[in-house]
Amino acid sequence: MKANIRHKGKTRVVVIGGGLGGLRLMKALKGCGMQVVLVDKNNYHQFPPLIYQVASAGLEPSSISFPFRKILQGREDVYFRMGEVQSIDADEKVLQTSFGKLYYDYLVIAAGATTNFFGNDHIAADALPMKTVMDGMNLRNTILSNMERAEVETDEETLQSLLTVAVVGGGPSGVEIAGALAEMKRTIAPRDYPDIDTSKIRIVLVNSDVRLLKSMDEASSVRAERDLREMGVEVMARTRVADYRDGVLHMEDGSTLAAKTVIWVAGVRANRIASTPEMTLGAGGRIVTDTCLRVKGMNDVFAIGDVSIVDGDQDYPHGHPQLAQVAMQQADCVAKTIRLRASSKQGAGNVNDLVFHYKDLGTMATIGRRKAVAEIGRLKFGGNTAWLLWLVVHLRSLLGVRNKIVVLINWMWNYFNYRNSLRLIFRNDEK
Amino acid sequence: MKANIRHKGKTRVVVIGGGLGGLRLMKALKGCGMQVVLVDKNNYHQFPPLIYQVASAGLEPSSISFPFRKILQGREDVYFRMGEVQSIDADEKVLQTSFGKLYYDYLVIAAGATTNFFGNDHIAADALPMKTVMDGMNLRNTILSNMERAEVETDEETLQSLLTVAVVGGGPSGVEIAGALAEMKRTIAPRDYPDIDTSKIRIVLVNSDVRLLKSMDEASSVRAERDLREMGVEVMARTRVADYRDGVLHMEDGSTLAAKTVIWVAGVRANRIASTPEMTLGAGGRIVTDTCLRVKGMNDVFAIGDVSIVDGDQDYPHGHPQLAQVAMQQADCVAKTIRLRASSKQGAGNVNDLVFHYKDLGTMATIGRRKAVAEIGRLKFGGNTAWLLWLVVHLRSLLGVRNKIVVLINWMWNYFNYRNSLRLIFRNDEK
Repeated sequence: MKANIRHKGKTRVVVIGGGLGGLRLMKALKGCGMQVVLVDKNNYHQFPPLIYQVASAGLEPSSISFPFRKILQGREDVYFRMGEVQSIDADEKVLQTSFGKLYYDYLVIAAGATTNFFGNDHIAADALPMKTVMDGMNLRNTILSNMERAEVETDEETLQSLLTVAVVGGGPSGVEIAGALAEMKRTIAPRDYPDIDTSKIRIVLVNSDVRLLKSMDEASSVRAERDLREMGVEVMARTRVADYRDGVLHMEDGSTLAAKTVIWVAGVRANRIASTPEMTLGAGGRIVTDTCLRVKGMNDVFAIGDVSIVDGDQDYPHGHPQLAQVAMQQADCVAKTIRLRASSKQGAGNVNDLVFHYKDLGTMATIGRRKAVAEIGRLKFGGNTAWLLWLVVHLRSLLGVRNKIVVLINWMWNYFNYRNSLRLIFRNDEK
Repeated sequence: MKANIRHKGKTRVVVIGGGLGGLRLMKALKGCGMQVVLVDKNNYHQFPPLIYQVASAGLEPSSISFPFRKILQGREDVYFRMGEVQSIDADEKVLQTSFGKLYYDYLVIAAGATTNFFGNDHIAADALPMKTVMDGMNLRNTILSNMERAEVETDEETLQSLLTVAVVGGGPSGVEIAGALAEMKRTIAPRDYPDIDTSKIRIVLVNSDVRLLKSMDEASSVRAERDLREMGVEVMARTRVADYRDGVLHMEDGSTLAAKTVIWVAGVRANRIASTPEMTLGAGGRIVTDTCLRVKGMNDVFAIGDVSIVDGDQDYPHGHPQLAQVAMQQADCVAKTIRLRASSKQGAGNVNDLVFHYKDLGTMATIGRRKAVAEIGRLKFGGNTAWLLWLVVHLRSLLGVRNKIVVLINWMWNYFNYRNSLRLIFRNDEK
């Protein structure tokens, strides 16, 4: 047997990607009587909304990561395989993977999205993404290392460049990391680096749009920008980055900004599942599905979450936003469809497949201590309430009792101490 | 001013290395009225005795690491500089470092030791050391990755090689990691890897000597070997490794062992401070000092801990063992000497310099759950008592209240759950 999975004559569902969508699907298929196989290139699930706190030394990578094998312990007929999918043969219903062939009856692609550098090699080489837990860790290392270098730098120009962090992208990630860095500047920097004039530290948020958080209401944008400015963040609107070379950001309008640290949160593109000609790709490389989340041109293959885009939903003519909520609701929808098909013994065709309808539960972004914005239905609010809500929602969504406790302790510790204690530069020498 | 340190006409003590010795020295010099500068290539202090628990997924790297800037917060006239020392000019009393020149009045070298591969490039390239926190993290990644590969491996020979871990070195580190791996095999492996026949997992401890823990009493050696064997570790005595190529260990007696994971804890050598011709080097590259810990041939330069060896102590004709206790006691001795010299305003010469006398406080090694060996003076014991003593001593020595709490929670969690929850493969893509 290839991929070392015992076949027991059961229907097999293969899920590619253990992000929020893929994992929700695993949960929704519990007790379905089928064999479920999860394939992921990492051996752990990660929780994207808190990655910026790893970058700003507030949380440990392990606090927002969870080993798949631990999550899936005790689930019979569930298999985890670490590796990458190289191609899909939809006619033979088999995947070619880094660990051999893997047959499926139903396939769900939930491979997520990755950072989009828009084809600029300089930016891809030198700017720092913030999409994975390891990205967050690398960012932390770079920020702290540049502070150490600043402490011994005597050349004024180089010093200012070391003390300048540019955040490119005005979405929730950009707003959140800019806010967290502004707090580091205010609370930690003066204590840790007595020989640096910390007033020289610049945090510049570069935004191509005229307003921040453009997916939210204008009132939230205004509030976010006001809060960030009060915290000392410089917000540049309508500014597009053209290039990043030798530590200098070049804008499309010809202006430049010398910054040794550039955080790139300007956009995402779907992760690619290699050569599958039948698959139609839409905007941002997303796999096009019909309203039942079936991949166009392939049988028994579904796609959910950031990797895919629904064609034909009248409420979302340009596709749904790439949000955790969409991925999780899509997972529930596909799980129901697969259960229905299996229980009808595939005899009735696909007539019972469910059409996906997205229910918007609201959006939020945190800015800093007791500062956030939230929109739930017609309700739009900010400040203390939004911030507390943000904390509760994210703590609840985090996987595992132990992780919840650790994160809560860290948050309380940091809140009352005004200091993060994880300022460790861990560099990894791989063999 | 070079190195960006304001000179205030005060006497300056420079300490190279913030290990257990260097840090103890910083503490012992508190309130001495001198300017103290710590130079280290990392921005954090690490606690060596628990690195094997990072490797075996029992503790996070951050739990046994502590940022220097946090330790030194609030200490005026104490400076931390991250970087490496390139050379020492003892005549001019100046260091050449990666961040420029650094003048000193007194210099203390506490640079520690690193893994000794005894000049074998194959071993250095493919075997895994366990000397730093990052080594521990790399080891954990390798062990878990090999388990993932084993899960999908169909070739019987490759499978066995993936499931074989060789630990080379029969000292405390070798005994501790072998014991921890044996517990992982027994408790975690069957739950996490249902498709692997975990009885095939082999942990082989390769020891060049006839007995384990040769620095301890023979009774302790016998007990350690018996305990390890009971836990399923294969102990090979009087076996020397000649080479490690293509995943196969070659012994000097011609026998071989196929093992994809080789943990190399067979010896250490002193970290080198580059080209300083005046310095005399002894066994293992250690800097030779006199009985007052003064580096031979240099004025106002001391060396303590694993990096150095005392020549002339009649109780230790071959030098002191490279143990934490020695380094810390030497730090106290040098701190007193420096204080004495400073208070006598350097007029009286070096006549008051203290002679170092090592007080052996005992040695211990842990083997597994409620299994350890300890020797304190003439007292030699093992089992429960030794294990509890080991826990208390190491928890007490760990720096920082927060780290103590986190480690204690982790230990209790793992003890009652029989499972470590940090089984995350974090790979770092540096830019």
